[in-house]
Amino acid sequence: MFTASHRRLNRLTGEWVLVSPHRTARPWQGQVEEVAADQRPTYDPACYLCPGNGRAGGARTPEYDSTYVFDNDFAALTPDVAPEEDDRKGLLIAQSERGICRVVCFSPRHDLTLGQMPAEAIRTVVDTWADQYLELGSLDWVRHVQIFENRGAMMGASNPHPHGQIWANERLPNEPAKELAQQRARADSGGCLLCDYLDVELNDGERIVTGNEHFTALVPFWAVWPFETLVLPRAHAGALPDLGPDQRDGLADILRRLTRRYDRLFGVTFPYSMGLHQQPTDGDPHREWHLHAHFYPPLLRSATVRKFMVGYELLGQPQRDITPETAAQRLRELPED
Amino acid sequence: MFTASHRRLNRLTGEWVLVSPHRTARPWQGQVEEVAADQRPTYDPACYLCPGNGRAGGARTPEYDSTYVFDNDFAALTPDVAPEEDDRKGLLIAQSERGICRVVCFSPRHDLTLGQMPAEAIRTVVDTWADQYLELGSLDWVRHVQIFENRGAMMGASNPHPHGQIWANERLPNEPAKELAQQRARADSGGCLLCDYLDVELNDGERIVTGNEHFTALVPFWAVWPFETLVLPRAHAGALPDLGPDQRDGLADILRRLTRRYDRLFGVTFPYSMGLHQQPTDGDPHREWHLHAHFYPPLLRSATVRKFMVGYELLGQPQRDITPETAAQRLRELPED
Ligand SMILES: O=P(O)(O)O[C@H]1O[C@H](CO)[C@@H](O)[C@H](O)[C@H]1O
Ligand SMILES: O=P(O)(O)O[C@H]1O[C@H](CO)[C@@H](O)[C@H](O)[C@H]1O
Repeated sequence: MFTASHRRLNRLTGEWVLVSPHRTARPWQGQVEEVAADQRPTYDPACYLCPGNGRAGGARTPEYDSTYVFDNDFAALTPDVAPEEDDRKGLLIAQSERGICRVVCFSPRHDLTLGQMPAEAIRTVVDTWADQYLELGSLDWVRHVQIFENRGAMMGASNPHPHGQIWANERLPNEPAKELAQQRARADSGGCLLCDYLDVELNDGERIVTGNEHFTALVPFWAVWPFETLVLPRAHAGALPDLGPDQRDGLADILRRLTRRYDRLFGVTFPYSMGLHQQPTDGDPHREWHLHAHFYPPLLRSATVRKFMVGYELLGQPQRDITPETAAQRLRELPED
Repeated sequence: MFTASHRRLNRLTGEWVLVSPHRTARPWQGQVEEVAADQRPTYDPACYLCPGNGRAGGARTPEYDSTYVFDNDFAALTPDVAPEEDDRKGLLIAQSERGICRVVCFSPRHDLTLGQMPAEAIRTVVDTWADQYLELGSLDWVRHVQIFENRGAMMGASNPHPHGQIWANERLPNEPAKELAQQRARADSGGCLLCDYLDVELNDGERIVTGNEHFTALVPFWAVWPFETLVLPRAHAGALPDLGPDQRDGLADILRRLTRRYDRLFGVTFPYSMGLHQQPTDGDPHREWHLHAHFYPPLLRSATVRKFMVGYELLGQPQRDITPETAAQRLRELPED
């Protein structure tokens, strides 16, 4: 099926992606990335996320020994914003937006990555995320909690110390709003979009990367980034706090398996942005929402050649060269340990 | 107004952008880009876009002396695709997609950029674009013609020879589809979205960058990229072929003015993706559509520090630090010659 150019529907957002399976032969004469020498000390005196070190604005990172969460010193969103609205002729429309931005250190060890940490330590990160989602989501004005990690200089991470971020918002951002609309439409006709989708994928098998009793990682049928993956709990759950201890261990395990495969693909700490999409925290039950994590890694052919989302992609629609099936196969064939 | 975090509505797409005016103080410790030494010969024997040189697949670029258009040797879209559709349980949805991908050399001179070319030569590029839009758009199965340029290694351009691309599609891609819906909604209540918007902006003045009798360049109220601009014809027009000779000169002139300002901002050939959004070519009149060009440049603070559209941006919504008003002011204060 579809050996030539075609488009696929992203069922989670309702948007299309263009797939060009024949285009992989294209030679690359463009920008190649630097590969950062990945030898880091366990402690870096110049790193503001290492235990005991000073941060911007005079704060000091304490001597933590598992995870450590603090308010971002350069927060894009702040909670103390006076409500304001502007609408000039239905054309210039703006609204004040409150929020909270936090940093989550995954480990005191400067030299590790999430996937290199012991399973129990990743489990602690999962618990920290669950607690943060609960704490921030329970503020009456917070309607969405975005937990994410930018890994690698290529993804704009300004510090290699293993850490992620949390941006909690007054209003539902664009992407979760699209996903909410699609999941709702499916629920209205009886069914959970991602439960049903996971069934089809497990039956099909072609796009599955790895899994355990509680979680599956797959390259979605509509993947945009070359090695994009979607991580899904096998039993319906809306957010991290819904997961029992075994499921949380399962999530930690699959994050470890998946990121280790990524690192082996091109023999480099694989850059990516990853994040959890959980139920909105607007007070509604949102039973239609199925918890999931997205991994968006930019690399295409090697440690130094990435996919650029530029001209056609920005002005028209995303375009990919290798098929999701090929990407899944390549990730599936790699060892996990 | 809005000195703290707020969101603004992109009236062309219906999506939101988060603005954090207070965040500009953030220090940058992350990836810095290389600045390519911009000394190029007028002719490069290794460049497949220079006159007389060989291309992939054995073709040869002729001895052209103004613009030169050819079918992309590594086309993402091809015209000879058998119609095929797939829909597995309403979840795995795909359709074959026909298309044509072309390359447009702006000049035989290897060392120039669009903005450095003489006004008459830019005008020839405008005429070439208009002819291509007409030729491709008149094919009965082509419903959208995307003309664009990726400039600079940072934007995935694999060759510095001044050139752009054209991707013509069987179906309307995501972004123009969103713009069509918004422009239609405005037209239904009587009015052209971008005519009305331009009026407001010309009155306001704060976001205007430059202009001439026929065209205006401004930083849109909802700009996502730090120095994003929108180029608008002052009189309603749906596509390039609607423009008379003076208007075409006007477009060439504004492209020259704008790109020269960009190059002066950080003293470097400013990387960007730019493209024209013209009426769909599906056979309907589309009087609601107002021709425009988008410039999406990634640089934020200097020639080496860019904005990363990563974690929160990919998973939530785009976020920007400096305001569109500040960006417009900085571009406005620069000389054009
Ligand atoms: O066609 P090129 O210049 O080789 O490729 C560039 O532009 C294309 C269209 O925006 C993108 O799909 C590619 O990722 C980019 O590298
Ligand atoms: O907050 P950081 O890590 O300094 O910044 C990084 O992540 C943010 C959230 O995705 C982005 O807005 C920035 O462009 C990126 O450089």
